[in-house]
Amino acid sequence: MSAIQNPFYTPEFHGEYEQISIGRLDLEEGGSIPDCHLAVATFGDPGNPPILVTTWYSGTHQIFREQYVGEDHALDPSRYFIVVVDQIGSGLSTSPHNASGANEAIAMSAFPKVRIGDDVVAQERLLREHFGIETLELVTGGSMGAQQTYEWAVRFPDKVRRAAPIAGTAQNTDHDFLYTRTLMEAITADPGFAGGEYSSNADVQAGLERHARLWGVMGFSTEFWKQKVYTALGFDDMDAFLAGFLQPYFTVRDPNDLLTMMWKWQRGDVARHTGGDLAAALGRITAKTVVIPIDEDMFFPPRDCVAEQTMVKESELRVVEDVLGHLGLFAVNPEYMPQIDRHLGELLDTPV
Amino acid sequence: MSAIQNPFYTPEFHGEYEQISIGRLDLEEGGSIPDCHLAVATFGDPGNPPILVTTWYSGTHQIFREQYVGEDHALDPSRYFIVVVDQIGSGLSTSPHNASGANEAIAMSAFPKVRIGDDVVAQERLLREHFGIETLELVTGGSMGAQQTYEWAVRFPDKVRRAAPIAGTAQNTDHDFLYTRTLMEAITADPGFAGGEYSSNADVQAGLERHARLWGVMGFSTEFWKQKVYTALGFDDMDAFLAGFLQPYFTVRDPNDLLTMMWKWQRGDVARHTGGDLAAALGRITAKTVVIPIDEDMFFPPRDCVAEQTMVKESELRVVEDVLGHLGLFAVNPEYMPQIDRHLGELLDTPV
Repeated sequence: MSAIQNPFYTPEFHGEYEQISIGRLDLEEGGSIPDCHLAVATFGDPGNPPILVTTWYSGTHQIFREQYVGEDHALDPSRYFIVVVDQIGSGLSTSPHNASGANEAIAMSAFPKVRIGDDVVAQERLLREHFGIETLELVTGGSMGAQQTYEWAVRFPDKVRRAAPIAGTAQNTDHDFLYTRTLMEAITADPGFAGGEYSSNADVQAGLERHARLWGVMGFSTEFWKQKVYTALGFDDMDAFLAGFLQPYFTVRDPNDLLTMMWKWQRGDVARHTGGDLAAALGRITAKTVVIPIDEDMFFPPRDCVAEQTMVKESELRVVEDVLGHLGLFAVNPEYMPQIDRHLGELLDTPV
Repeated sequence: MSAIQNPFYTPEFHGEYEQISIGRLDLEEGGSIPDCHLAVATFGDPGNPPILVTTWYSGTHQIFREQYVGEDHALDPSRYFIVVVDQIGSGLSTSPHNASGANEAIAMSAFPKVRIGDDVVAQERLLREHFGIETLELVTGGSMGAQQTYEWAVRFPDKVRRAAPIAGTAQNTDHDFLYTRTLMEAITADPGFAGGEYSSNADVQAGLERHARLWGVMGFSTEFWKQKVYTALGFDDMDAFLAGFLQPYFTVRDPNDLLTMMWKWQRGDVARHTGGDLAAALGRITAKTVVIPIDEDMFFPPRDCVAEQTMVKESELRVVEDVLGHLGLFAVNPEYMPQIDRHLGELLDTPV
């Protein structure tokens, strides 16, 4: 019932970042976070036009620092002020495992349900109050970051000039809900999970490994495995790849934090603003929008993304080709980032 | 360590069938089944040209009786003698849960590893010794039944005039292996599984339900869920469909039996006959072959089936359209069987 230590959630693994308090955050599902902290990494001069980058399930700002942001990328810190905000439950921002001090009462299994809208409200307050940012040149993010991107464009249409949701949807699909439930069950079925009151993520090692192997089935594509793409990443066979990459990627993370994010992912839905009318919600978007699915994505397939894109007025579809499927987001395929950079770059160069 | 009762594996749920002993079956992986029984349902006059139908994971002859065989179908008992043989581990043929008498030493967790090739050897012996059948007009089956169909055509090319593997492959893919492992883990992670020495499948209810929900993610297609196809099947929402159909479908079955089939599924590979050379193995096939993938299949996608089809000399690809994906095999979509009947019917009408 009190916060625990996890050395993964430190600058050693995530580089430099700030912890910024936005104060009390009342939540859509009820309850609140008494003192909500957001972990934030910024790139570029604060006087540059601002870009917000949102994070995906299990990811943090660090993947953007390492892969997406740079003078050789569309997210160019010499031209823009790029703010990457880690989502609530990410393990860096306020999360079940680190809820202490003023947040002690919501540690671990007591953590409240958080929705995509809560993150976006928190981010808007952060940008306005802490950085003085009122209007964003671009909001972008992948997967759950795409959910936040859509939420921004629908909730705050006047504040978002351009939007680029990557490999994600505005309204989570039933299939995604079911997939996420199997991920959650892989963790909670582990006796070491103990109803969320484990003393260390290591207690839930077996469940986290099963959860990782489920990502192995859905996170990549059938072609990824068939073409043995992992050999190009330095692994001899698929079990070496799972044991050397996907399993450790997840087992260092906190189970309650992952579950908080998954509950949120399952319920991402901009149509909550319009009584369930998705077309009406997406019709509110005034941002120039580029919708960027990944062709081999098994759970955000392009056809699901197209269906939403056509409901956004000033929008265009750009399909990224990547045999890695959804986890193409990791940008390990050398052909991935040039496509992202081209699509984001052309969007940023479009006058609004 | 001794066989257990499971009322599901009776004629009440599977209609009439024979239990035929083929004697001792020595296995590819070593060990043997002392007295191998095969459950067999036949349709039509034994004097008609014979057709062999093989069964899929968790399935038995009964789905063929109910959906595939009839005078209004290509598998027409007024024209053919149709023999459906339940696979080893199916729960009707010799399986972990029913191994008793001469098979007592291989009950439950002591059951040996069985391969697709073992089933095919057993079936060939059954057909020859019990039915006097030397040559088959057609071998067909779906999923693991397709694995057996390919194995027949490669192992006994002179005995198979026509072959129609449906929604399956000759060499199991790595992706399928990984998917199957998550299914296995859903069962074995249940403390009630007790290393395979539970006293009833009800002890493993939670694990079997998780296993069922994984089928919900991969067994159907993303479009199945998006279009809420289950409402046409009489279910109000996706959880009602899972609770009313997919979960009970699996929870009545035996965990060890399912695991025996999955181990076999994971390792289906005709290239075992040719030192790993798949093209050489498929090159042995002389049967006229129609390869029938289902367009929305998430784990035997058409492109995996095409790759093999092109290695079979006298072959043709026929893709079935079905939003149900892999579990289109259940033939609940009224547009499914007409396609299967057309493809099998045209194959049967092709002179060889």
